[in-house]
Amino acid sequence: MAGDFSVTPYKVEGKIDYDVLAKRFGLKIIDDELERRIKKHTGELHFMLRRHIYYAHRELDWLLDEYEKGNKFYLYTGIAPSGPMTIGHLVPFILTQWLQEKFGAEAYIQIPDEEKFFSRGVPLEETHRLSYDAALNIAALGFNPKKTKIFLDTEYAKTMYRQAARVAKRVTFSMVKDAFGMTNEANIGWIFYTSMQAVPAFLKSVEEGHNVPCLIPLAVDQDVHFRIARDVIGKLGYYKPASIEAKFLPGVSGDSKMSASNESDTIYLHDNEEAVRKKVNKMFTGQQATAELQRKHGGDPDKCVVCQNYRYMFEPDDKKLDAIFEAERNGTMLAGEHKADLAKRINAFLEKHRRERERMRDRLDEFMVRD
Amino acid sequence: MAGDFSVTPYKVEGKIDYDVLAKRFGLKIIDDELERRIKKHTGELHFMLRRHIYYAHRELDWLLDEYEKGNKFYLYTGIAPSGPMTIGHLVPFILTQWLQEKFGAEAYIQIPDEEKFFSRGVPLEETHRLSYDAALNIAALGFNPKKTKIFLDTEYAKTMYRQAARVAKRVTFSMVKDAFGMTNEANIGWIFYTSMQAVPAFLKSVEEGHNVPCLIPLAVDQDVHFRIARDVIGKLGYYKPASIEAKFLPGVSGDSKMSASNESDTIYLHDNEEAVRKKVNKMFTGQQATAELQRKHGGDPDKCVVCQNYRYMFEPDDKKLDAIFEAERNGTMLAGEHKADLAKRINAFLEKHRRERERMRDRLDEFMVRD
Repeated sequence: MAGDFSVTPYKVEGKIDYDVLAKRFGLKIIDDELERRIKKHTGELHFMLRRHIYYAHRELDWLLDEYEKGNKFYLYTGIAPSGPMTIGHLVPFILTQWLQEKFGAEAYIQIPDEEKFFSRGVPLEETHRLSYDAALNIAALGFNPKKTKIFLDTEYAKTMYRQAARVAKRVTFSMVKDAFGMTNEANIGWIFYTSMQAVPAFLKSVEEGHNVPCLIPLAVDQDVHFRIARDVIGKLGYYKPASIEAKFLPGVSGDSKMSASNESDTIYLHDNEEAVRKKVNKMFTGQQATAELQRKHGGDPDKCVVCQNYRYMFEPDDKKLDAIFEAERNGTMLAGEHKADLAKRINAFLEKHRRERERMRDRLDEFMVRD
Repeated sequence: MAGDFSVTPYKVEGKIDYDVLAKRFGLKIIDDELERRIKKHTGELHFMLRRHIYYAHRELDWLLDEYEKGNKFYLYTGIAPSGPMTIGHLVPFILTQWLQEKFGAEAYIQIPDEEKFFSRGVPLEETHRLSYDAALNIAALGFNPKKTKIFLDTEYAKTMYRQAARVAKRVTFSMVKDAFGMTNEANIGWIFYTSMQAVPAFLKSVEEGHNVPCLIPLAVDQDVHFRIARDVIGKLGYYKPASIEAKFLPGVSGDSKMSASNESDTIYLHDNEEAVRKKVNKMFTGQQATAELQRKHGGDPDKCVVCQNYRYMFEPDDKKLDAIFEAERNGTMLAGEHKADLAKRINAFLEKHRRERERMRDRLDEFMVRD
């Protein structure tokens, strides 16, 4: 049955119908008209936009109206680390970096190091370590240090807590209970937490002393935080943040969302060549049992995890992607070569990423802000 | 009926039976033996201890054991401002200052400027202003600036939030719901808040890297915060804080607790001579209708608010207090002179207090800590 799936920040279950999900969440689909409007300013569209990986939004049209009136926006995204980062985790940061470059926008990047402590019990010392690892992965993506602030909640709490208090005052337990599926046994840190996630969406307006539009690129499972936050932020007298929301990179097994905690379902940024090859080899393709049958019946690139990895991250050229998809459909792309090629691409990407990471190690403080 | 009263941080109702209250809260009464043990170290007992204004405790005996083993304790108290401070608000600070002096103890004084914003909707700008006013009133009491840290939660949040998170992780909504009488419509800041109040009770242990005993002088209505906090702090591996708990200075009307928000029931630290005279004149005495009847039947100093003001704050000399009480009982102390004298004492106290306040205005930063 359509709609037999569930997406919250804490669990993604079932096969997601993204159009149904957008309706559920009250998101609008990014249509051709909006794509044209973005393209007018960026010259080209990022492949994640062209391919509708970023497929839905809130008030992106308003944000562009403001931009065209000369009212520049800033970007806000983040990650709450519970373990080492995966390639899927990069999706919001890659688009945010691109938007920064194209629109000359500042980026606020929140690493809420308390969140997974509250929601999953990961020790604070561990989330702290993981947060710095995440900061390095983010800095490695080409952000402009002069226009980017990365911060950990516990290190930036003097700035954050006062603003979070203003949000928290207007959010009740009933609201978070329903939104996040909490019980009365939820811990009070977790209950409070959404206030902290709301802050960067209006923090620049507080700092500037006047309203600054905010655009949040995010994975769609985080949307619920901002459904709550938008109302409150509006009541506080700030612009409600706009958002642009991404689908999930599928897991090795073909599940809708790569599970960061399931090691065999996930490619980590630290995976070595051998590990990547092994995981890619296990990727679900939906191909036929034999090369002969595959040539006869062909495959479905929408279900093939290898194809989807090209689409989400590893083949930016649309024509080449089309050729890959076409070969998959025709049955001329066989699993073995297909996977060997993807593994090579991923390894090349990871090698470059790790080089950039190392280059950033001494420069990280150019990005970090602390109280 | 005995026990027909209620005491929470947010409401005090009915005529309090303090012995029943101690039982309800699981407090022990400060007995002669404990008084002797304190006196051994302090030389004399503060009149608030002699008169059982501080009447109950948790683990004060353990705290003295530790002290006698050479394990010095620190003090923690505070005030959450919702309006201008009253003379009743000084009770915990007066004893804390005395304990600091006698035991050479450091004092951590928390001014949770977010608390009344959450619990009563006092605007943050207003609580911030009131917090600095409170800090000045506290500094004026003779605290040693070298041994005293005063802080506002929002200004010290980098230090506080990380530790509060550790508490919050172990407290559920069920626990605070029952303890503070919250509903599902409570705001999530208020739900979280008790974690912030817990922090100063183990913060010095965090800072020192080893366990330091903590003694909390407090008005008994705040006890519930520490009933929750003690369990959690113990589980975090720190000493559970000891506490020493005070009865309330009665209101002008004779109610068990002076209501800080009821202007006519309360003497504020900023009240001028005339205002004090008027309020003292309205104090409930329980005296007879005429001087003649009063001389005949006498009065009850336990019910007489004028007598209680002498006892709590304005007559440190026990012999003189006995004489006042005796005169009240005999009916030789008549309301008029009684009140005129108390008003004079209060005005002298307030005048001195305001002088000290002014003296401290430029020195306040010696006390304040901020991130």
